[in-house]
Amino acid sequence: MNFQVVRRTIGWLLLFEALFFAVPLITAVCYWEKEFFVFLGMMAGCGLLGWLLTLKKPANDALNAKEGLVIVALSWVVISIFGCLPFIITGTIPNFIDALFETVSGFTTTGASVMSGEQIEAMSKSVTLWRSFTHWVGGMGVLVFIMAFLPLSGAKNMHIMKAESPGPTVGKLVPRIKTTAKILYIIYFVMTVVQFIFLLCGGVSVFESLNIVFSTAGTGGFGIKSDSMASYSPYVQVVVTIFMLLFSINFNCYYALTKKQFKDFLNAEVKAFIYIVTTAIVLVVINLMITGTGDLTLGQAIRHSAFTIASLISTTGYTTTDYNLWSLFSKIIIVAVMFVGACAGSTGGGIKVSRILILFKGATHEIRRTIHPHQVKKISLDKRIVEHETVRSVNSFLFAYILIFAASLLIISLDCKTFETAFTSVVATINNVGPGLGDVGPTGGFSFFSPLSKIVFIFDMLAGRLEIFPMLVLFFPGTWKRG
Amino acid sequence: MNFQVVRRTIGWLLLFEALFFAVPLITAVCYWEKEFFVFLGMMAGCGLLGWLLTLKKPANDALNAKEGLVIVALSWVVISIFGCLPFIITGTIPNFIDALFETVSGFTTTGASVMSGEQIEAMSKSVTLWRSFTHWVGGMGVLVFIMAFLPLSGAKNMHIMKAESPGPTVGKLVPRIKTTAKILYIIYFVMTVVQFIFLLCGGVSVFESLNIVFSTAGTGGFGIKSDSMASYSPYVQVVVTIFMLLFSINFNCYYALTKKQFKDFLNAEVKAFIYIVTTAIVLVVINLMITGTGDLTLGQAIRHSAFTIASLISTTGYTTTDYNLWSLFSKIIIVAVMFVGACAGSTGGGIKVSRILILFKGATHEIRRTIHPHQVKKISLDKRIVEHETVRSVNSFLFAYILIFAASLLIISLDCKTFETAFTSVVATINNVGPGLGDVGPTGGFSFFSPLSKIVFIFDMLAGRLEIFPMLVLFFPGTWKRG
Repeated sequence: MNFQVVRRTIGWLLLFEALFFAVPLITAVCYWEKEFFVFLGMMAGCGLLGWLLTLKKPANDALNAKEGLVIVALSWVVISIFGCLPFIITGTIPNFIDALFETVSGFTTTGASVMSGEQIEAMSKSVTLWRSFTHWVGGMGVLVFIMAFLPLSGAKNMHIMKAESPGPTVGKLVPRIKTTAKILYIIYFVMTVVQFIFLLCGGVSVFESLNIVFSTAGTGGFGIKSDSMASYSPYVQVVVTIFMLLFSINFNCYYALTKKQFKDFLNAEVKAFIYIVTTAIVLVVINLMITGTGDLTLGQAIRHSAFTIASLISTTGYTTTDYNLWSLFSKIIIVAVMFVGACAGSTGGGIKVSRILILFKGATHEIRRTIHPHQVKKISLDKRIVEHETVRSVNSFLFAYILIFAASLLIISLDCKTFETAFTSVVATINNVGPGLGDVGPTGGFSFFSPLSKIVFIFDMLAGRLEIFPMLVLFFPGTWKRG
Repeated sequence: MNFQVVRRTIGWLLLFEALFFAVPLITAVCYWEKEFFVFLGMMAGCGLLGWLLTLKKPANDALNAKEGLVIVALSWVVISIFGCLPFIITGTIPNFIDALFETVSGFTTTGASVMSGEQIEAMSKSVTLWRSFTHWVGGMGVLVFIMAFLPLSGAKNMHIMKAESPGPTVGKLVPRIKTTAKILYIIYFVMTVVQFIFLLCGGVSVFESLNIVFSTAGTGGFGIKSDSMASYSPYVQVVVTIFMLLFSINFNCYYALTKKQFKDFLNAEVKAFIYIVTTAIVLVVINLMITGTGDLTLGQAIRHSAFTIASLISTTGYTTTDYNLWSLFSKIIIVAVMFVGACAGSTGGGIKVSRILILFKGATHEIRRTIHPHQVKKISLDKRIVEHETVRSVNSFLFAYILIFAASLLIISLDCKTFETAFTSVVATINNVGPGLGDVGPTGGFSFFSPLSKIVFIFDMLAGRLEIFPMLVLFFPGTWKRG
């Protein structure tokens, strides 16, 4: 482990976090809030510490896959610890574990909250915006952002990018990683602005629009109202539905669009994603109409189910209705799409559609191999062969995911009354969704859990966002050997 | 597909099933029951049909992996269809789907029942024994039994044995498969007799002992009393606990014992199994004592939790207490051990300990590979390298298992009130356990499900017992091509 490189990158991270605090700082200025001083202090503190950590150049700047994973895992822990301080200092969330839970939930774009609806609406504007802004920062990746600006060489950047980017593989858009990171952030920024304009056109205030776009773009889901998105107009709900889905698609596809490579846009993963979303919505609408849940008209049923499915498969977690009241069939679909999640290379969480595709192809190949033993073919996606290493890594991911899921479920079951609550609270955190079913459903929250369970959820949210391995590497003794 | 070989093997199967009907037939004679004529008719019918199907020798007796899978899958469907007829004809279970459910549950050693406690106690003795005997027949494998007697060549037998035996790999005990099959059945028979003697010593009647040993040996779990094993003496409960665990261990280990190869007995899988069982029992006992569920003394808590864990990890499904009343923590442990299941090559179901070991080693290897990229090692178990094909097959198994689980859950959720009931009913059937939690818990049953759900469960029980692939192969069009 090259500790000096790790130390210096964490330093850079803190310098950037100081920069991020400018967003709530400016908000505090606009609304004349006393939180101004808190954020100013945070900027100064983070900036100073970051500057100290970056001061000394490492003697050896080697950075391997191991360092990449450790840097990413530690960065997310560090940014969350500093990010939660404003909640504690302003008294918004006085308890450290609670504040850390809320911040990790923010950066990992989970959107699970320990705050009640009243507490959320009572927050100062600057703290509210900081809370929503953590979604935007975490969505595309903090280190990817840093990489767009820092002078690291390609191979080194690649190790970090691989560790932080969601999905089984990372595609470089252009030969230089630095440029790739820039392009990704430009797409992200432009799409965020477009949604912002759409919301303004719907009569939403600038402040609310900002919160909603940060939350939608990062597929986070922190609401600023106690009823999440229920009280907004159908127009706003439709806009959010569409953008939640758009932010769930691999950003490489949008780059392909700008190059007019339409075939690359509609790749196998996007097609599967559209297919899953459509099927889920249709099934829920039919089920809602047959069971007559909530006495909805067909139009309302379509709007609510489209919003809910888009929100949960994108792992945003916004709600327009209490789907806890739906029938079990619809709820199972909801839980299933939470597991599936968004496309790789998007801001969404979950297992990712491309992983499901690789796993599915692996299983059907295994059966085909038995039927036609002499036709040994490799697994391919979009006419490109999926490397053996990728398949193996996806399989290992699945089992590690299941193990962490089971262990978490066991610990948090000490605090839960029903199997539904326990199971879906883990589903909602490890997949970075936010709300689950039962007591953690749209009208519930995570405040009733013990500190131990909250620590488990914090781990699960980080493990989910960073896709398991970076977090597990921290616990292997071999990681911490010098050299 | 070589249809003639398939046809002839199914014929043999029916001849053997005719033989199996001798067991309830003799029971009917002993107790002067009119069911005698039903079983006599079944023997004649199965025997005649079997004779007709075996009459013509196949022109080509080639039997590949594909035929092996198809023969096994079809055999289990056919034996269940004929096996359910006595239930229908005697009027014990008049409905075909219900009778088929009960019989598949029997042969797959699941033990889930559509009958109420009163119905079970009202059954005639011969039908009761037939119901329990299906567990014994299915436990070690119907085709393995046939193989011990039929003159098939080694390679052909191997394809069938691979398809029917539980676990990721099949070990030949001796060079000849036929002898291996014989040895397995001798061990099975001897252990069954030993348990039978132990039960007789505990004052259990011959008839009840027979039912209990058939059910324990096959790790099935059909009870003959409405309260399962609750009303038996602690001695009997302890005997059953021990034998449920013994029948969960790979029978190859017992063969090693007879050869005085003690190291081969205590292999990695058995060690892991003992470790999991002990941990689960200790955790449940501690949880029961802390929560004070049921006001148990420490001794009672140990007995009930040992019985329950042994019953559920062996996927037997006997109960001595309503664990539905335990706290959620204990219930999660219960569900977890249901997934894990028994050792490969035993009569138990579930995912199997050796698969879990291979998956676990695969995941830790993946992480190690990242930390030490130059130390590429292969996965090994008991100092033997696990072949790449085995690892790949285990991974494919896991995903196919998850897919079938999710699809089943969705369909049967139409009939369920709670998530707990829906989830654990699939857990209990696909892992061949029997009881789950909620409405399908120890005091509940599967009778309330719709015919559609019961068909799903029938598929799940077969898929679980045959470990997914044989059942899936039936649905691939390529399977049914001539040649």
